[in-house]
Amino acid sequence: MRGVSIIGVGQTPVGEHWDRSLRHLAYEAVSAAMQDAGVEGAHAMYVGNMLSGEISNQSHLGALIADFCGLRGIEAVKIEAACGSGAAAVRMGYLAVASGVHDLIICVGVEKMTDDVGGKLTAALAQAADAEYELAHGITFVGLNALLMRRYMHEYGVRHEDFAGFSINAHANAVGNPYAMFRRPITLEDFKHADMICDPINLLDSSPMADGAAAVVLCPTEQAHAFKGKPVHIVGSALATDCLSIHDRRDPLWLQAAEDSARRAYAQAGVTPQDIDLFELHDAFTIMSALSLEACGFAERGKGWRLAAEGEIRPGGRIPICTMGGLKARGHPVGATGVYQIVEAVLQLRGEAGACQIPDARLAMAQNIGGSGATIITHILEAEE
Amino acid sequence: MRGVSIIGVGQTPVGEHWDRSLRHLAYEAVSAAMQDAGVEGAHAMYVGNMLSGEISNQSHLGALIADFCGLRGIEAVKIEAACGSGAAAVRMGYLAVASGVHDLIICVGVEKMTDDVGGKLTAALAQAADAEYELAHGITFVGLNALLMRRYMHEYGVRHEDFAGFSINAHANAVGNPYAMFRRPITLEDFKHADMICDPINLLDSSPMADGAAAVVLCPTEQAHAFKGKPVHIVGSALATDCLSIHDRRDPLWLQAAEDSARRAYAQAGVTPQDIDLFELHDAFTIMSALSLEACGFAERGKGWRLAAEGEIRPGGRIPICTMGGLKARGHPVGATGVYQIVEAVLQLRGEAGACQIPDARLAMAQNIGGSGATIITHILEAEE
Repeated sequence: MRGVSIIGVGQTPVGEHWDRSLRHLAYEAVSAAMQDAGVEGAHAMYVGNMLSGEISNQSHLGALIADFCGLRGIEAVKIEAACGSGAAAVRMGYLAVASGVHDLIICVGVEKMTDDVGGKLTAALAQAADAEYELAHGITFVGLNALLMRRYMHEYGVRHEDFAGFSINAHANAVGNPYAMFRRPITLEDFKHADMICDPINLLDSSPMADGAAAVVLCPTEQAHAFKGKPVHIVGSALATDCLSIHDRRDPLWLQAAEDSARRAYAQAGVTPQDIDLFELHDAFTIMSALSLEACGFAERGKGWRLAAEGEIRPGGRIPICTMGGLKARGHPVGATGVYQIVEAVLQLRGEAGACQIPDARLAMAQNIGGSGATIITHILEAEE
Repeated sequence: MRGVSIIGVGQTPVGEHWDRSLRHLAYEAVSAAMQDAGVEGAHAMYVGNMLSGEISNQSHLGALIADFCGLRGIEAVKIEAACGSGAAAVRMGYLAVASGVHDLIICVGVEKMTDDVGGKLTAALAQAADAEYELAHGITFVGLNALLMRRYMHEYGVRHEDFAGFSINAHANAVGNPYAMFRRPITLEDFKHADMICDPINLLDSSPMADGAAAVVLCPTEQAHAFKGKPVHIVGSALATDCLSIHDRRDPLWLQAAEDSARRAYAQAGVTPQDIDLFELHDAFTIMSALSLEACGFAERGKGWRLAAEGEIRPGGRIPICTMGGLKARGHPVGATGVYQIVEAVLQLRGEAGACQIPDARLAMAQNIGGSGATIITHILEAEE
């Protein structure tokens, strides 16, 4: 099995791109990543996307995006794991390089959510949950997360405002990220008085829907120095699943797939949570940040919110998270998010994160979640010595 | 890079399964494949599917199907490449085993087309084509194939009835396959007088929509004899793409991705078309059979139809195709089809194809096509010595 490294990254700004369709967004990210790596071709492309069928009436994105990026003919398929599609595509790229079959691979996550002319977005996002056991009752995706948050607050005696730190940190960090959607700080008062979306989840607990694309170029570690950029090495890669239906989990407040995938990634990398310098976690809702920190070993059960309340998730804290704005403030183009997280981790490890830079970052973890925890992909990246 | 073998296969009958949903169909195929292999677990699952979002309001099939099959927690994602999704999922499984990351993998293709309560199926299938350049004009997927067939007839001076042999062979072969949807022979007269669907494509040029699921269990070749069944070895595996838009191809009557993927598979296997004992090709429409035979080197350009007219595609002919009914008569549950083809090739190579058995079959090729040729996956399988 060969080691796998990232030799190029690219991204579009996250936002409402009314002037560009799915393929144009993907092209922008892919061409930037190829330019960053100094490559003019690739052997395969894995496209992470959730909603193209529902929103853009387009399936078959592998061949479409590869062709539009000037790579007609190469191996290309779409990978889908709901909001975890982006990192799942990187995981497939990792396997393809590790296998020895391909040497140069592009993984791109792309999502176009604003073209929702049919008003189908809420229903399409809910498809991440179990259609027969959950959606049949009329619940939305944010509704499922609201149930989890309410249960967490009840079970552990936590107030809604105790989650504020997640959102405040994300917005503060996004200010320094030119690709982020919301580059403005928020206050505790803003958080407390934000409009209610689905009790207890309010607007500032929630990441925004958005358009965007992000891409990485992978190659075998043994060849990584043949390219122009500073490589970053994938030292841990794991994907784990859980049941879609929350009612079917042994403990709805425990992200078993986060624990499983993180444990495998730590073991592969030979590290522990204490070694991680920054953690790009999947803060689709503030509750998911707390659950993710607990399942990955950064906090005890029921105590994840404290890291936010005590400022330990901020730059300089014990475990900086969402260092470039996270899903909350960078924006959450669902099938692209997992690749954005990895692009941001790479920029941190190359020392190119600008105003968002975490000093001396050597090890970064990125974790992308599909649905309310049914698919979780964890990658650990290491800076070049 | 490790060799990869198939140690178990399973399938549901193809047809209209009004009593079973997507997950039940997948479970039936997966449990049959696991039983066939004599395994009780797996390290990963790749699910090929095209239409679950549109027709069943369900994305996120990887985790869903893995959990429903009793494999909660394992790595699992959905692979989509339009009608080529099934073989694309097998291709991903191949890469995952070859990589050394996973030892035991299940690839399952599943499609549920009859639950089309919203009447969305025709539009959903058309998403295999280019939404912005083709579908925007209102054309359907069968319409695109009809344009190709008309052009072929014009260009090479071929009559519609010259394609009859493809359909007659498929129906004749399906009689012996207990899993096939249409187990009845048809005649030349039937073919000539079938209802017109989209001129010149009539009902008997067309494969039927259907429900179904098929699964294979993969492991490293070096471990294949540790299991109870007779292994079949994947000696060639390749996936190639082309542009989605037919107008953008250099020659609309040439399946470049079929040529490319077949050439790579032949080279990997160290064989030529003359060595292939049977060919499970993608006869979604009769025209695709002709184009596939030409692009893969079984006939000269413009002469693929002659193999049908001269009976050379029948059992005992030069290159038997669709030996268990093909898409035409076994049925075409789109995202499952590519796995059905591979299951059938395995049965042939194990000598377990019953009334459909091709005597002394040693090398089989299976080719699955996404859209009108934009994603084409070719596998070459070899019988155990």
